[in-house]
Amino acid sequence: MNYQLAIIGGGPAGYTAAELAGKAGLSVVLFEKNSLGGVCLNEGCIPTKTLLYSAKVYDSAKHASKYAVQVSDASVDLPKVISRKNKVVRKLVLGIKARLTAAHVNLVTGEARIVDRHTIQCGEESYQCEKLMICTGSETFVPQIPGMEEVNYWTHRNALEAKELPASLVIVGGGVIGMEFASFFSSLGVQVTVVEMLGEILGGIDHELAALLRTEYTKRGVKFLLSAKVIGVSEADGKVQVKIEHPDGPITVEAEKLLMSVGRRPVMNGFGLENLNLELTARNQVKVDEHMETSVPGVYVCGDLNGKSMLAHTAVREAEVAVHHLLGETDTMSYRAIPSVVYTNPEIASVGASEEFLQITGFSYRIIRLPMTYSGRFVAENEGANGVCKALVDDEGRLLGVHLLGNPASELIVLAGMMVEDHRKYTEWKQYVFPHPTVGEIFKELE
Amino acid sequence: MNYQLAIIGGGPAGYTAAELAGKAGLSVVLFEKNSLGGVCLNEGCIPTKTLLYSAKVYDSAKHASKYAVQVSDASVDLPKVISRKNKVVRKLVLGIKARLTAAHVNLVTGEARIVDRHTIQCGEESYQCEKLMICTGSETFVPQIPGMEEVNYWTHRNALEAKELPASLVIVGGGVIGMEFASFFSSLGVQVTVVEMLGEILGGIDHELAALLRTEYTKRGVKFLLSAKVIGVSEADGKVQVKIEHPDGPITVEAEKLLMSVGRRPVMNGFGLENLNLELTARNQVKVDEHMETSVPGVYVCGDLNGKSMLAHTAVREAEVAVHHLLGETDTMSYRAIPSVVYTNPEIASVGASEEFLQITGFSYRIIRLPMTYSGRFVAENEGANGVCKALVDDEGRLLGVHLLGNPASELIVLAGMMVEDHRKYTEWKQYVFPHPTVGEIFKELE
Repeated sequence: MNYQLAIIGGGPAGYTAAELAGKAGLSVVLFEKNSLGGVCLNEGCIPTKTLLYSAKVYDSAKHASKYAVQVSDASVDLPKVISRKNKVVRKLVLGIKARLTAAHVNLVTGEARIVDRHTIQCGEESYQCEKLMICTGSETFVPQIPGMEEVNYWTHRNALEAKELPASLVIVGGGVIGMEFASFFSSLGVQVTVVEMLGEILGGIDHELAALLRTEYTKRGVKFLLSAKVIGVSEADGKVQVKIEHPDGPITVEAEKLLMSVGRRPVMNGFGLENLNLELTARNQVKVDEHMETSVPGVYVCGDLNGKSMLAHTAVREAEVAVHHLLGETDTMSYRAIPSVVYTNPEIASVGASEEFLQITGFSYRIIRLPMTYSGRFVAENEGANGVCKALVDDEGRLLGVHLLGNPASELIVLAGMMVEDHRKYTEWKQYVFPHPTVGEIFKELE
Repeated sequence: MNYQLAIIGGGPAGYTAAELAGKAGLSVVLFEKNSLGGVCLNEGCIPTKTLLYSAKVYDSAKHASKYAVQVSDASVDLPKVISRKNKVVRKLVLGIKARLTAAHVNLVTGEARIVDRHTIQCGEESYQCEKLMICTGSETFVPQIPGMEEVNYWTHRNALEAKELPASLVIVGGGVIGMEFASFFSSLGVQVTVVEMLGEILGGIDHELAALLRTEYTKRGVKFLLSAKVIGVSEADGKVQVKIEHPDGPITVEAEKLLMSVGRRPVMNGFGLENLNLELTARNQVKVDEHMETSVPGVYVCGDLNGKSMLAHTAVREAEVAVHHLLGETDTMSYRAIPSVVYTNPEIASVGASEEFLQITGFSYRIIRLPMTYSGRFVAENEGANGVCKALVDDEGRLLGVHLLGNPASELIVLAGMMVEDHRKYTEWKQYVFPHPTVGEIFKELE
C-alpha cells in the first residue's frame, strides 16, 4: 500500500498532522498501537483535568460558606470519579476518530516498525510512504534508586486508576504532574508529601509564583521537601519508606503510597528509529529544523520525541508546521510563546521568558507586577485569595514573558502568548476594550 | 480653586479619566454625589457578579453528583450573600479611592452643577476648570404602564438588597440585566417568569445563542413570554398581577414580586448640562466626536451619558481616549469590538457584528460554527452541557463578529475582540500556540 504520508503515533502531534494532511488531500496512514490521543488524552492532560475538576467541585462545596452557601456534608466517590474520567476520555477518543475518518485517514491499530524512510512494517503488512512523520512521544522516566524494584510504586498511570484513596502519599518530583496530583489527592483528604530535588517546585515556572503556590498548599496541609534527593526506597508493613538526603540531614518519609513523577523522556527505541540514521543533538535527541524536518529529507519528527518542549500543544503546533512544510506552504516553528499551565487550584500559567532565564542570559528587563485583586471579578469570585500577574518587559516595553497565579490563568495566558509571540508592547493592550468585569482586564491594567 | 480638568461623575468613565489625567500630571477635581464607582461598582456589574457567583457555588453543590461528588444538603443564606456583596463593593470602592489619591485627584463628594464650561458649583464652593469631562451615566428607565404607581416593584437596586426570597418573581425585560437576575433567582429556587416585548430575549445578542440560553433556562423552570407587551399592573392579596398583550391572546402573570428591567437612559437633567448648549443628535443624545469631545471645545462626554453603548468597559475606553486627546496624544474611539457579556450560567459573550446586523446591512458573511465540545477541557468541566462558538467572517476570512455560549465565555471573548478590532483573519489564530487543554483552543479549531 502506498501513501503520501505515513505517521507513527496517534497522540496530539500524530492526529493533528493526520487530519490536516488528510484534509489537504494527501493519502495518509496513521499507526497507533494503543488508543488514539496518546498519553495526553488517555493518561495525561485530559484525565488529570477531569479528576481535578471533580476535586474542584468538592473543594467548592467544602468551602461554599465563603460565598454564603451552606453545605452540610460533601464526599467524593473515587470509583465514580475514575469512571467519569474514562467516559470523558472515550468520548474524546471517538471524536478524534471521527475527525480522522472525515479526513480520509487510514488508521492502522498496531505496532509500526520503520524499515527504511519509505517503508513501514505493521503486523504482516508493509506500507510504502513518500514522507514519514514520527510522533512516538515520551514515556515516564523512573530513576534508578536503590530498592526501587522491590517497592510497589505508582506512576501517573496508576494514580489515574486508583481504586481507593491512600491515607498518605509521597510524591517524588514536584513538577507539573507531581503538583497536579498533589492538588487532587490533598483536596480529597490524602496526607501528601512532595519531594523535590531542586530548590523550588515547578522547575521552569517563575520561582516567585511557584513559591506562592507552595505556600498555599502548605497551608492546606501538603508537606514539601525541597533540595531533597531520594537515596533509597523500601517497603514494610504495607508502607513505603523514602530515604532522603536533605540539607538539614537525612530524612525518611513514610506513606501508604509512592507516586513517581520525576519526568518523561522520548521513546526512541523499539520501532526501528535507528534504521533511519537520523542526526542527533548533543543531548542525544533527534535533530530537527524549524520545519520539524530531520537530517533525512522527507522525515519529520514532531512532539515529545524531539525533546524540545514535551507539551501537547507544542506537539500540535509542530505537526501543523510540518504538514504545511511538506505541502509546500510557508510556516516555521516558534518556541517563543509556548504556554505552560499548572492546573492546581489556583492555577499557574506562564508564557515566554521567566525571570530566571532572563537573568542567566543577561537580558535587560523590567517587572510589572499587579495583584489579581485589581480585578473586581477576581475579588467577587475568589474570596480571600491572592493572585499575581507578573509581566516581564524589555527596555521598549515589549513583552518577554507573562506569569499568572490565580484562576482562570489557564484560559487567559494565550492572550499574553499572542502578544509575546508578536513582540508587542504591554501598552498595546490598552487600546482594546476588555469586557468588565473580567479577570483578564488585569492585562489592560498593567503599568 | 482652579483645575486643569474637572470631571463630574465617579463611575467607570469618571474614575478612569481622573486617575489617568492625575497620573499624567494634570490637576484634577472629581465630583461624585454618591459612592465612587458609580452604578457599575455599587449596583451593577460587580454586585450582580458577586450574587451570581454565590448562585454558581450553590448550583455546583446541587449538581455535584455529575462530577462524582456527593452533597447531601445545600442551602443559600440570602442575607449573607447580600452582606458579602456589600463587603466586596466596599473593598473595591476603597481600591479606587486609593488609586485616585495616589494620582493626586481631588475627590469632592457632593452634587456638582455646571454653571458654564469653566465653572462648576458644588455646595458652597465654586471650581474653575480648563477642561470639563461629564460622566454622569444613566438611570433605570421605568416605562409608564397603567397601575405602575400603585404597585410595589423592584428595580435592580432593590433586587440587590432583597432581604428574603420571594416564592415567585416576574421580570419585565429579558435583556442582560433581566436575564442575570432570572439566573440568580431561579438558581435560588424562585419561580421566575421573564416577560420580553421583543421576539427573543437578550436583544442585540446573536439570536441563535439567545434562543439556546432561553431553552436551557426553560429546562430549569424559568418561564418566558416573548413578544409580550405589558399593558397594566396591579396588586392584590400581596401579589402583583401583570397584564400582558400576547400573540396568543391576553395573559395575566401573578407573582410575589415584580422586577422592572426594561432598560436605562442617560441622566441629562439636574446638573446644569443645559447651560453648555451642547449639540444633540437626532436621538436627543449629546453629540461627541471620535475623541469624545462635544460641540463645545474642551468639554468631553464619556460613558452612558452619550448613549453610545451603555457598558462600563466602553466608558473606560472612552475616558482613556478623551484624556489622551486632551493631553494632545493620538487616540481615537472605536466601537468595532465592544464585547457584550451575559453572566448567566452558562455565560454568553459576544463581540463585533451579529448575524442580524450583517443581514440588515447586506454585508456578505460566512458562519463558522463549532460545538464547544470540540474542546476537551469543556467536556471535562461541563458535564452534559452544550455550547457554541460562532464566528462570522467576511469573504477574505476576516473576523466580523464572534459569539460564544459556554463557560468561561466572558474571559475568552477579548481574544476575539482583539482580532475583530484589528481586522484579522480567523486563520491567523492557527499560528499561535494555545495551551492544551483549554476552552480557548476552540478559536484555533475554527474552520
